[in-house]
Amino acid sequence: MEKKGILLVVSGFSGAGKGTLMRELLRQHENYALSISATTRAPREGEEEGREYFFKTREEFEEMIAREELIEYACYVGNYYGTPRAYVEEQLEQGRDVVLEIEIQGARKVKERFPDTVLLFVSPPSAQELRRRLTDRGTEKPEVIESRLARAAEEAEGIEDYDYFVINDDLNVCVEHVHRIIECERSRTCRGGERIRAIRGELKAFSK
Amino acid sequence: MEKKGILLVVSGFSGAGKGTLMRELLRQHENYALSISATTRAPREGEEEGREYFFKTREEFEEMIAREELIEYACYVGNYYGTPRAYVEEQLEQGRDVVLEIEIQGARKVKERFPDTVLLFVSPPSAQELRRRLTDRGTEKPEVIESRLARAAEEAEGIEDYDYFVINDDLNVCVEHVHRIIECERSRTCRGGERIRAIRGELKAFSK
Repeated sequence: MEKKGILLVVSGFSGAGKGTLMRELLRQHENYALSISATTRAPREGEEEGREYFFKTREEFEEMIAREELIEYACYVGNYYGTPRAYVEEQLEQGRDVVLEIEIQGARKVKERFPDTVLLFVSPPSAQELRRRLTDRGTEKPEVIESRLARAAEEAEGIEDYDYFVINDDLNVCVEHVHRIIECERSRTCRGGERIRAIRGELKAFSK
Repeated sequence: MEKKGILLVVSGFSGAGKGTLMRELLRQHENYALSISATTRAPREGEEEGREYFFKTREEFEEMIAREELIEYACYVGNYYGTPRAYVEEQLEQGRDVVLEIEIQGARKVKERFPDTVLLFVSPPSAQELRRRLTDRGTEKPEVIESRLARAAEEAEGIEDYDYFVINDDLNVCVEHVHRIIECERSRTCRGGERIRAIRGELKAFSK
């Protein structure tokens, strides 16, 4: 039986609500497993080792690169972020759909290596709303917010490299929509090889 | 506002239940318009001109070909089948999703001309079930059934040219699944040009 999971990459502007979206997707549906990234950035308050990230020193991270233990990695605002390979492959083999929350450079690399990956870009309904969400967090200095908005403008140039562009306005509507995208992706001919071969074989046997 | 409809081509083995599926899709959801094909085959009992098909003589049909009034046409079991262009384009412009029920040769031609078309292949759960459905109709001679099964075996070779492979087991489940595929296709980046350009423009204005 062919029941390999789907690899789903979620990117989006900082402040698009990707984190909450992913948490809800996993809470509401059993088929998903969240990939946990390794990073060299410092933990934020409330973040736990092995839950939000595997926190690494620069030296440790560069060793992982050297040993090819990462599917992709990238440098963002001075820190490394990367996806440990073993966990992802294990989950996919077990038929779970693995969600990677990574930024645009990483998304492109994953798609190059695994063309069946579904790339999804999440956006707030407007740039105005994005600014509001970043400001409302209350955790970032104004110049950090401006730098995130500038970064968002750059990232917007790459949206066409994604398969889907999803607006996160109402969280639950968005969660359900993303889930349906994955359910529909299962019916793509490029993923249904086993079933297609089965019916093809039966029909051939009939017409002999 | 960019709200062009999606062109959906539905193919599948004779006996897969495409006709019923399409009728239910249109009955349950308002966004669809069924394209009506022109054909030179004789009307079956209960079929009406302009409802199931536009019934044409061979001469009339060949005139339509000459005037390029057909998006695609093909010859199948000795008869012409084709899709009148004007109606399809009109409906798409009005934002309706147009469903074409055509066979595999036509599907390939439509995709060549309109790469954004969604190609969907409908199959019963098994070849055994296909034979049963063809037999239960009670309208076909055994040799016609055998020729349809042989044709199905040929058509099965082309399934990978389609975007989606959908099993029609429970009719309502299948209708809902096809509808969701179209809803999810709306979020494809290749179809969301206007929205993507809008947020990109806003972000650029911000970072000045």
